[in-house]
Amino acid sequence: MLRVPYEELLSVLSRILLNVGFARDRAALCARLFADASRDGVSSHGLNRFPQFLRMIKSGVIDIQAGPKPVATFGSLERWDGCSGPGNLSAHHCMARAIELSRQHGIGCIALANTNHWMRGGNYGWQAADAGVIGICWTNTLPNLPPWGASDPRVGNNPLIIAVPRKSGHVVLDMAVSQFSYGALASYRLRGEQLPVDSGFDSSGRLTRDPAAIETSKRPLPIGYWKGSGLALLLDLVASLLSGGQATHQIPAEPDRETRLSQIFIALDPSCLDPSCLVQANTSEDLADQIIRHFQSPPPSRGGERVRYPGERVLQTRVENMAKGVPVEPSIWTEIQTLNP
Amino acid sequence: MLRVPYEELLSVLSRILLNVGFARDRAALCARLFADASRDGVSSHGLNRFPQFLRMIKSGVIDIQAGPKPVATFGSLERWDGCSGPGNLSAHHCMARAIELSRQHGIGCIALANTNHWMRGGNYGWQAADAGVIGICWTNTLPNLPPWGASDPRVGNNPLIIAVPRKSGHVVLDMAVSQFSYGALASYRLRGEQLPVDSGFDSSGRLTRDPAAIETSKRPLPIGYWKGSGLALLLDLVASLLSGGQATHQIPAEPDRETRLSQIFIALDPSCLDPSCLVQANTSEDLADQIIRHFQSPPPSRGGERVRYPGERVLQTRVENMAKGVPVEPSIWTEIQTLNP
Repeated sequence: MLRVPYEELLSVLSRILLNVGFARDRAALCARLFADASRDGVSSHGLNRFPQFLRMIKSGVIDIQAGPKPVATFGSLERWDGCSGPGNLSAHHCMARAIELSRQHGIGCIALANTNHWMRGGNYGWQAADAGVIGICWTNTLPNLPPWGASDPRVGNNPLIIAVPRKSGHVVLDMAVSQFSYGALASYRLRGEQLPVDSGFDSSGRLTRDPAAIETSKRPLPIGYWKGSGLALLLDLVASLLSGGQATHQIPAEPDRETRLSQIFIALDPSCLDPSCLVQANTSEDLADQIIRHFQSPPPSRGGERVRYPGERVLQTRVENMAKGVPVEPSIWTEIQTLNP
Repeated sequence: MLRVPYEELLSVLSRILLNVGFARDRAALCARLFADASRDGVSSHGLNRFPQFLRMIKSGVIDIQAGPKPVATFGSLERWDGCSGPGNLSAHHCMARAIELSRQHGIGCIALANTNHWMRGGNYGWQAADAGVIGICWTNTLPNLPPWGASDPRVGNNPLIIAVPRKSGHVVLDMAVSQFSYGALASYRLRGEQLPVDSGFDSSGRLTRDPAAIETSKRPLPIGYWKGSGLALLLDLVASLLSGGQATHQIPAEPDRETRLSQIFIALDPSCLDPSCLVQANTSEDLADQIIRHFQSPPPSRGGERVRYPGERVLQTRVENMAKGVPVEPSIWTEIQTLNP
């Protein structure tokens, strides 16, 4: 694994995007969102996706000049049209707008239709937490997950992000509703490892920990079996109904053609509520720290590893990668370098 | 299993509550919320909880005269104090208030502190959907679930409800973040059945489908292992921080003393958004039906059963129980009858 300084990564990606025709500020933000994902240890939704992102610009699926536009607004709830622009830029814009609404009304919600893949959903959770507000967002995806009780994909693995700001480290959950993404399955297969838990069915319908068997059967498991299957359905329903956009079953089932997604961005500003009105003696600040301390207090059930809270590893990885350089797949880096004007 | 007509159930419960000192309208609503849970097939959070509810009134944990009060409001976000009143009445009141806010602002959110067990969370999802709005709500609970990687309970199985209105049957997800609740584990044990999937650890730390082994070890599994563990933490953080109330680790870990819970109620009114501003040609009505049709379209992976959407079985059960009477545990019914003045 190659390591590339974060600043170099940023400038290489920026130059490529400028060269493709992005406006200067949009190139810089788009490059940063890709680089941040890799820096935080999520290269599967960072640099590794950059070549596909460029292919989808070339094929016309992504319109680099387009930005999201409001189409209907009502108080704290707004419907926006992504106009097929770059998914990460539109998601960032809509979370920023939800944050703005939360400052005015306590809570704000943007329903975004007609957008493209947002890459790493966690970025928008960190964005909310960095702004001091609670962020909740999700997206639908192409159909890539069989509902519980069936073997054909009918729901998406619709990631759900919930982020809570905390001075000593934001708590950010960024989870797809399948047990492992296809990207994660491939990583396990390439390392020759089995999955730690049953995470899908093989082609004969038996539960398996073999990543290759699940890639072949295309039957990953929803988290919690029937529960994740239902959660995927509800996230799709809410996103498509509120945005007036497409539902999972209307999205082309090929990754290079996955477009016109529907997304929800919710921000909640706890500072709007007068802290003198706390029902208990907790202050927000202290309480979040207490909750995390308690969460991490039990002795580990095996091995020596302490329980981790969502977002903890991201912060550690970020510090390490800022110091040593961001790990990049050599083949991806070579491919990207050839595009660098 | 005994069957009791719904109306009889209502009047028996109402009379007992009146006798205990409830005001007339509060007795009627409280009785209905208990009866509705049993009628819909969720007697574990309906009638079966009624004797415990009365014990907690007697012990002073629940104050039957208390109702929720707003303590801080800011636009579409409000903080309420449950004042230790009956949990189902306060939850119903706060969802009603969130619905009211959603009519004014598109979205409304109530954060409720200092409340008691809301019994069946699904009730408040159905309430929102019956009012034509999308409802999202959750509660924290006493610590009853070990985080992934530990064997001591540190998070709650915090149920999450998401409800979407639909003329041909609301879609209502009502899921705890543990694979099976303790109530469900007991039911399997009493029927002498194994669980359909690994759902916890036995006392020696092996995954098991034996419900009794999980009851003994007190180590049920979070849905999706580390994912459900993280989701439980985030639901607790958001509920306690926004409400200014207690977090899971501050709640007494005995069911009869479980009190001062924190809850979130969100309502979203899709009708606020001008339907002429749909980004796609979908109307909400048609789209929800299309999504459900597609969800149920794949052939079942085994046996003859079709994929069910969340809420479908509830509707079927409701129709059956309204016709034949609501099934009640004979021992519970006997206990309740002795209280009937």
